[in-house]
Amino acid sequence: MPSAFTIDDLAAAVRERSNGALVERIVGDGSRRIAAVATLEQAGADELSFLANPRYRRAAASTRAGALVLSNEDRQELFGSGSAPAVLIVCDAPYAWFAFAAQVLEPRRDPVPGCAPGAVIHPSARVDASSSIGPLAVIDEAACIGPAAQVGAGCYVGFGAHIGEATRLYPGVRVYHGCRIGARCILHSGCVIGADGFGFAPFQGRWIKIPQTGAVRIDDDVEIGAGTAIDRGAIGDTVIEEGVKIDNLVQIGHNCRIGAHSAIAGCVGIAGSTTIGRRCQLGGAAMIQGHITIADDSVIAGATAITRDLRQGGFYTGIFPFMTNRDWERSAAVLRHLDELRERVRRLEADARARDTGPDR
Amino acid sequence: MPSAFTIDDLAAAVRERSNGALVERIVGDGSRRIAAVATLEQAGADELSFLANPRYRRAAASTRAGALVLSNEDRQELFGSGSAPAVLIVCDAPYAWFAFAAQVLEPRRDPVPGCAPGAVIHPSARVDASSSIGPLAVIDEAACIGPAAQVGAGCYVGFGAHIGEATRLYPGVRVYHGCRIGARCILHSGCVIGADGFGFAPFQGRWIKIPQTGAVRIDDDVEIGAGTAIDRGAIGDTVIEEGVKIDNLVQIGHNCRIGAHSAIAGCVGIAGSTTIGRRCQLGGAAMIQGHITIADDSVIAGATAITRDLRQGGFYTGIFPFMTNRDWERSAAVLRHLDELRERVRRLEADARARDTGPDR
Amino acid sequence: MPSAFTIDDLAAAVRERSNGALVERIVGDGSRRIAAVATLEQAGADELSFLANPRYRRAAASTRAGALVLSNEDRQELFGSGSAPAVLIVCDAPYAWFAFAAQVLEPRRDPVPGCAPGAVIHPSARVDASSSIGPLAVIDEAACIGPAAQVGAGCYVGFGAHIGEATRLYPGVRVYHGCRIGARCILHSGCVIGADGFGFAPFQGRWIKIPQTGAVRIDDDVEIGAGTAIDRGAIGDTVIEEGVKIDNLVQIGHNCRIGAHSAIAGCVGIAGSTTIGRRCQLGGAAMIQGHITIADDSVIAGATAITRDLRQGGFYTGIFPFMTNRDWERSAAVLRHLDELRERVRRLEADARARDTGPDR
Repeated sequence: MPSAFTIDDLAAAVRERSNGALVERIVGDGSRRIAAVATLEQAGADELSFLANPRYRRAAASTRAGALVLSNEDRQELFGSGSAPAVLIVCDAPYAWFAFAAQVLEPRRDPVPGCAPGAVIHPSARVDASSSIGPLAVIDEAACIGPAAQVGAGCYVGFGAHIGEATRLYPGVRVYHGCRIGARCILHSGCVIGADGFGFAPFQGRWIKIPQTGAVRIDDDVEIGAGTAIDRGAIGDTVIEEGVKIDNLVQIGHNCRIGAHSAIAGCVGIAGSTTIGRRCQLGGAAMIQGHITIADDSVIAGATAITRDLRQGGFYTGIFPFMTNRDWERSAAVLRHLDELRERVRRLEADARARDTGPDR
Repeated sequence: MPSAFTIDDLAAAVRERSNGALVERIVGDGSRRIAAVATLEQAGADELSFLANPRYRRAAASTRAGALVLSNEDRQELFGSGSAPAVLIVCDAPYAWFAFAAQVLEPRRDPVPGCAPGAVIHPSARVDASSSIGPLAVIDEAACIGPAAQVGAGCYVGFGAHIGEATRLYPGVRVYHGCRIGARCILHSGCVIGADGFGFAPFQGRWIKIPQTGAVRIDDDVEIGAGTAIDRGAIGDTVIEEGVKIDNLVQIGHNCRIGAHSAIAGCVGIAGSTTIGRRCQLGGAAMIQGHITIADDSVIAGATAITRDLRQGGFYTGIFPFMTNRDWERSAAVLRHLDELRERVRRLEADARARDTGPDR
Repeated sequence: MPSAFTIDDLAAAVRERSNGALVERIVGDGSRRIAAVATLEQAGADELSFLANPRYRRAAASTRAGALVLSNEDRQELFGSGSAPAVLIVCDAPYAWFAFAAQVLEPRRDPVPGCAPGAVIHPSARVDASSSIGPLAVIDEAACIGPAAQVGAGCYVGFGAHIGEATRLYPGVRVYHGCRIGARCILHSGCVIGADGFGFAPFQGRWIKIPQTGAVRIDDDVEIGAGTAIDRGAIGDTVIEEGVKIDNLVQIGHNCRIGAHSAIAGCVGIAGSTTIGRRCQLGGAAMIQGHITIADDSVIAGATAITRDLRQGGFYTGIFPFMTNRDWERSAAVLRHLDELRERVRRLEADARARDTGPDR
């Protein structure tokens, strides 16, 4: 159940969660009680909302939220230096402030430590007494479940796999043998960690399987979306560094390394042995070729295929612009012979040069 | 086991299923018995086939099916106004007639109401006595399973989630806490309803998680394919309206709304907070950006990225046409400098104008 | 546990696995013991590495591996006709030799035949005594599990489905009713075989479901990746022929046929009723339209959309080349009006011709 906080208490909690990095100024009654977060349009007197994008200034001006987080610039623009119907929480990073506050206000059902009915735990597995194992989960031989970890209903943790402290596996996560998940990670339903990489040697018209003898190592504070698959390494591990956030239905091939604090949106595919730098952002359905290296701080637009190294960070795009189907048919027809068009332009240029310098003059 | 119907009885059943909207004319012996559906090529004397695409007229002319559904135009073309080896079922919408007839003829194994061995049902869950809970399914606290619903083996229905009347969850579906599925829906194996949306605030080089406090609401008569993921809302719900059909491995981000009777093919990705109109059709692997609005009756070609609002319905495409790799290398090289090519054309035009009006004249 | 082999014994085992097709020449001490495979950089004295790509010659020259598989050409280039620090295993197909050797050396945990605790097996199912059924797996009515098959934890094998000899289902695989999996297949976690194809007839503004009465037939030696979905046929079966290798998160629509020994990389989508030839290779995230035919030996680049038949094998590509976002905006602007650019070139050409032949002359 959600419990209400005074705005002052909420601010103290946010300061604590941000290790003192987020300092706010409260304009109005800090003893007003806040029970939940809500959108600018729907928030009521006991709810907190936020303004982080100038597009929504109009909605912020008329919100009935009890408290509103915003930047000083937006505050000046909307309310001058006076007060407002909402208690104003003025700070430099209103979206981050809101995120921490929402964490504080989030309704939580504390998991009950221990083993739910029907879970199957191998006698050699080490399951911390403070962890929580859901109904019908399977913890295989020599697996290790850390303190305060939560393993949801129907999960599978394979031979010798390791789930770190306070990590949460939602129902139906599968972790193959030997994979290691760090602390405070969140893995959503249906994700698969450590299936075999796609490695085959061609021989006499068929494919010879190359055993995938590595594993997957996932560092602390990583979140992995529903249905995402991260393959084990062929030789050596696939590595997801700390703080990486991965959305749903993402495919990460064997022996990839994803740099710390990168974010990967849904439907992205990353082929094997590719290294993604730190703090990269990959838009939805971007496709990254195998055996390449993407520099730190690269931002890749959705639906873009990256087919060779990116040696320096920056914003990269490769999307065929959409059109009405009729316009597209015309553009596509030209595109199929684009080099011929260029050749025609070359000839025109040559003719023009010949005319300018030739006997006609 | 399939049971045979006379063609007359089948027609009566189709009229009933279509609420009288589908009226047929039977040419031939309506007492012939039909046991199943089949392709034009493979159908035998006790099977029903259909012709809905003129491409297949030749196959229809030689089919050995016992009964053939087709339009009056195709009938005239193939058989004039006479009879045919097959009993002809002539109607305006032969594909829909066939669909209803196939439903009538479909072999079914009626589920046994009650709880299969090993299912784990929380004492506070409300499970209708007419529903069927498969082996090793987990029904969590305060969840609600409606009349005649089927929850397959190994499914998970979370805290307070609601499964509507006659809805079917195939084995291994996961429904997170608080999500609501309407009546007569079909959810295929591995789909995940209500995982956290991908919401993080950047702060000091890392990502702060924004709790996803909304849920997913799925209205009546929706079908959702294998492995598809529909995320819960950040604040407020993600909504799938009635009659929507979603194929496999589709990703729908938080706070999307999909309008009634839209159809979404496999591998589509829809980023967060996007609204898709009613009766839209999204081709396979189409990618839809977040925070945009797609008008009713939009049709989007497969593999097309939509990056801004579509304000009116229509057929939109954005596919790079495929070529031999050699041709592609040439086209791609020009494409990388397309603006330079345009500039060269501009200069040629300016030169030509100068020549036409200049001192040379 | 891995066990060490002498190089001579390893070579004998490779010859056996390749049915005598792979013949090697050993340069150095064949009695040296090898316990595992490793990369060129990381291999030690009891490990085997390989050189199959000239790019890695430098690493091969300095490897400390106990044994190194390579071609005669690479051997001559690196070591002349002398010996080397590593024992050299010289053969025509070093990558295939390495693959077989890695299979021999692969550490294995032999499954225990029989039924693990909590598995639910219908009394009418036929489960071979030499097979191994994991904890909490469900084997439904009339299903059949072949000799030495392994069904992982939490798998579901539906009514009348058939799992072939020595086939392995990793935890959490779902096989719908009536589907048949051949011998020696490997199915990874989360894959779904036989969900309904996406078949609906439009009728009065809504979609009428067409029952999917076919199934899926998977032939011998097929591997299927995590989260991949292969739909059952509408009428008749979807077919995956022998030796096909399919990566993660691939979608294969109803009534497709995938020809023998084709390889399909991650995130590929193949719409319904399409036939892929034998020995094809589909790059990651390629998208194949429905109702088309792809010739044998076609190679399709990643991220390429194939929208019509490929009548002969070859290498096909259709990728929008990525650029900096700024360059892309310029190229995309021209691309939207590419036909106008062509028209302008045509006019320039016509003017030039008029000038060359006209009254100005």
